This record gives sequence, structure tokens and C-alpha cells, in this order.
Amino acid sequence: MPRTIKLVLAYDGAAYVGWQRQSRGPSIQGLIEDALSRIEGDRVSLDGAGRTDAGVHAFGQVASARVTTAHDVVALKRALNAMLPADIRVVNLEDVADSFHARYSATGKTYDYWIWQGDVLPPLLRGSCWQIARVLDVEAMDAAARCLEGRHDFGSFQSARHDTKTSVRTIWSARVAAGAPLMARGTSPFAPPAGDAAGEAGGHGHPVVVRMEGDGFLRHMVRAVVGTLVEVGDHRRTADSIRGLLERPDRGEAGPTAPPRGLVLVGVHYGPSVAPDAGSR
Amino acid sequence: MPRTIKLVLAYDGAAYVGWQRQSRGPSIQGLIEDALSRIEGDRVSLDGAGRTDAGVHAFGQVASARVTTAHDVVALKRALNAMLPADIRVVNLEDVADSFHARYSATGKTYDYWIWQGDVLPPLLRGSCWQIARVLDVEAMDAAARCLEGRHDFGSFQSARHDTKTSVRTIWSARVAAGAPLMARGTSPFAPPAGDAAGEAGGHGHPVVVRMEGDGFLRHMVRAVVGTLVEVGDHRRTADSIRGLLERPDRGEAGPTAPPRGLVLVGVHYGPSVAPDAGSR
Repeated sequence: MPRTIKLVLAYDGAAYVGWQRQSRGPSIQGLIEDALSRIEGDRVSLDGAGRTDAGVHAFGQVASARVTTAHDVVALKRALNAMLPADIRVVNLEDVADSFHARYSATGKTYDYWIWQGDVLPPLLRGSCWQIARVLDVEAMDAAARCLEGRHDFGSFQSARHDTKTSVRTIWSARVAAGAPLMARGTSPFAPPAGDAAGEAGGHGHPVVVRMEGDGFLRHMVRAVVGTLVEVGDHRRTADSIRGLLERPDRGEAGPTAPPRGLVLVGVHYGPSVAPDAGSR
Repeated sequence: MPRTIKLVLAYDGAAYVGWQRQSRGPSIQGLIEDALSRIEGDRVSLDGAGRTDAGVHAFGQVASARVTTAHDVVALKRALNAMLPADIRVVNLEDVADSFHARYSATGKTYDYWIWQGDVLPPLLRGSCWQIARVLDVEAMDAAARCLEGRHDFGSFQSARHDTKTSVRTIWSARVAAGAPLMARGTSPFAPPAGDAAGEAGGHGHPVVVRMEGDGFLRHMVRAVVGTLVEVGDHRRTADSIRGLLERPDRGEAGPTAPPRGLVLVGVHYGPSVAPDAGSR
């Protein structure tokens, strides 16, 4: 019986040419399609919600595929994880309605971009942060990010290489905050060590997190936004200048594209329910 | 002129036999000593505040050395980072009084231990979390951890291979908390994505962080504590049973030693400012 499956995927993008299958090297889509095709005994094609670029990571990329295999979802997930390399994992796998399509059913996405502000990047974070030695004005960056919220033409933040008809998107939320030093303080729920140890424990750097949520993102959009926000953080442009970029879209006026390794596709949003409708099968 | 330098070091311990120089493979101490010796033109020996085990990470390990090189601290830090592999970084380097000794001057340390609770470990965290698929009772783990606070004989949590005279230590703070999904939510200062995306964004797992601060730690102590706390989280022992382990030290009665990759030496404390308030304990 043909069925539709939905996969939630997490990966470290460092070793890949990106999500999309390409001739120039290993892709995440390619490796998962190959594994799924071996199980299926026939060519399976996988639709991804977002085409993450080379070096970009995911915690919750979503993909869908039509398969006929009789394996249940638990066996299928286990088999895929056994075949895939350690830097790509199937976090969840479920049967969904045949109408579900990872890309077309998606109603939005959440991205995080991590910056390590400090002159030395802690090795444990070397694969997931853009390191900036300068002191950033995070408040100004946050004010600038908030200007992006709403329905706008984001043409100023779109890669020249794109294939979309419109560059209008709705950003639900765009915020920037300086985290306490990661591990040292950020992800730990406890207060920083007092006194001198605060210095040892991470006073030599801390993360700055940019989080964007919206109904869609143009090619390189988050990274172009981050490159522009960093110029605001450097006081090389004002927070208000973002409004001009939205009113008169011009990629040349915005900042550079931030490197891919700081970007994480956190999750993909869908409507109220994607569970298979019992009646429809 | 002979001088004493203090180095703050961050490293990914995965590739090393541990901090301490050993014949069986590359050590962090060994690599830094070798680099420093080449700059010095003579053998330099490095004293580390803590001897982290194979696979254990650091954000703020501290080491000290006596050198005669005329390079200033900025040049010295740059030269060392140019010579060291990417998974070992000198985060800070400063001149200190000759009386300073990274180990003997230390008044305490802060350690974090990260557990990923979920059946699939996100690849971006694969080097820094102990993955546990079972649902842990984090509240019980925290209650158990708090029993460790104060001055106790921690012999139940000490490796059989040790060379300390006494197993009495003072733990200033021992706490456990479930973080929101890391990256997905934990380190980001913002609310989780609403609705279904909360599931995609990390509902398939989340970190549990154990943080311990104290005046000293026995060999494998944090990892033995974590292995024991996980038994509490599994309801295989009660939170109160920790008191018995402190009253009647017996390594055989405590839980197993948790794997090294979840452990991070967050920072080393110096000076009086971080000592616990004598009056309050």
C-alpha cells in the first residue's frame, strides 16, 4: 500500500553541499533518499521543507516521501538511522495523510543564527557559531531586527541566485539577544559563578542569538539579515536604516551574507494536524 | 626575566587522552607545553588547575607556567593559538604574580554535565551530551543533587584509581534542571514556536543540565554523581538514598560513572570572592 511518511531530521551540515542533491558532493537529501530507496527496493524521492545551504545545520528539518514498504514507522526510523552517517539523524518518523507535503504544507519556519562574540571561539562551538571579536551593540541589533517583523518585500536580503516570483514574506518575529556564555552560563539554568570565576567561566566571550520566525524565507535571507544586523551592532549603520532596505529593496544596500555555519533550521511549522485521516485511507 | 603566566583554555576533549601528558596518546597539557617550549626555546612545564579525563571538555580550564620569553601576552596568546590545533584554544593569557599556581591557588571549580533526554541525539550535540532515551524525573534528580551540597565525605563518588589523602570536599551548589531544547529553545532567549512546530523544534528531546560548584572534586566525582542522579531520575533509587552514600562512603553503592563526553570544566575559581559565605553554612 502506498503511504506518505513525514520525517523530522537533525543534522550537522558541515560535511555536506547542503540539503539538496547535487552532483558536486554529498547532500543530506541524497543520503536519505539513497537509504530510503534501498529499504524500498525502488527509487524514492524526498521532499524537504527547506533547502538548507552547504554548512547549514538543522534541529528540525522536515521531509516527506511516498513509500510502499511494509515496515512500521519504528522499524523504518531505526533502519534509516542505522544506514545514515552519525551527522544525519532521523529524529521522528510518522505516517501522515497523503495530502501532506513537507514543503507545500509548511506554514512557516523558525531559524536561529548564532554569533560568538569574543576573540577566541570555544572549540566545542567551532562548528556552529560565527565568531566576531568586536563588541556588538546587541540592543541596537534587536531594535533593527524588530523592524523586519510584518509583511514586507525582503528583496534586499535575497541572494542574486534565486527562483522565486515574489520576495514578499511575513516575518512573525525577529529578535536578537546576548546570551550568557553558552554552557558556561547560557544553557545552564543557574546563576553564573560569582567573582573572578565569572571571568574564567566565559567572560572572555558570549553568544549572541538571532531568532527569526516567519511564513517563508528567501534564499540566504537569514544570513543576509544577520550580516546587516552585525553592521548595526558595529554602529556602521543605524537600526532605522533597515526600514529603508524594506521600502526600496536593493541587495547592494544591505550587509554581507553571514557564513553558513552559524545557521540552524530549528523547526518547520504546519497547520493544526498532519495525522493521517483514518477515513481517507 | 622569569615571569609567571596564567592561561585560560577551552577545548574539545574528544581527540585527547585527557589533560595530563601521557605516553599513550596526545594530551592537552602535552600539546600546549610543546608549543610553549618551542616559543621559549627551552622545556616549559605547565600546571593545570584540573586534570580533565579523556574526552572531557573545557570552557575555562586554567593553567600556569614559568617562562622567560620576552613576548608580551598578546603576542604569546597569538603564537600559541597559531601552533595549537583548532580543538584547543588559549582564550586568555595574562601575567600574574609569581605566587600564582593554577592548581594550588584555585579555590574551587564549576562543572556542567549535559544529558540529552530523547531517543535521538541531535548531531550538532553529539560530542557534548550523554544521550538517555528514558524519561527522567528531573525534579527528583535535583532534590538528590541538593543533598550533596555542603561538606561531606564523597568517597562513594570517587574512582578506585585515585591518589588523594581525603575524600572530604565542600560542594557549594549541585543542581539539576531540564533545559528547553538546546538551540531549539534552550539557548535562545525567546519563547518556543507556537503550535505544532514546538514538536518539530525539539519536542523529540531536550537537555538536562547538572551543574556542580565546589572547592574541589575527586577523580570521576562529577561523572559518578551524574550516574547516580540518573538512577534517581529513573526511580531506581530515591533522592534520599544520596544521604546514605555520604554517611557511609562506598563506591559500590553509588551509580555507574557517566561517560566523559557530557562533562565540561566550566571555570576555575580563584581568590576569596568566590568562597562560600562561612557564616551561612
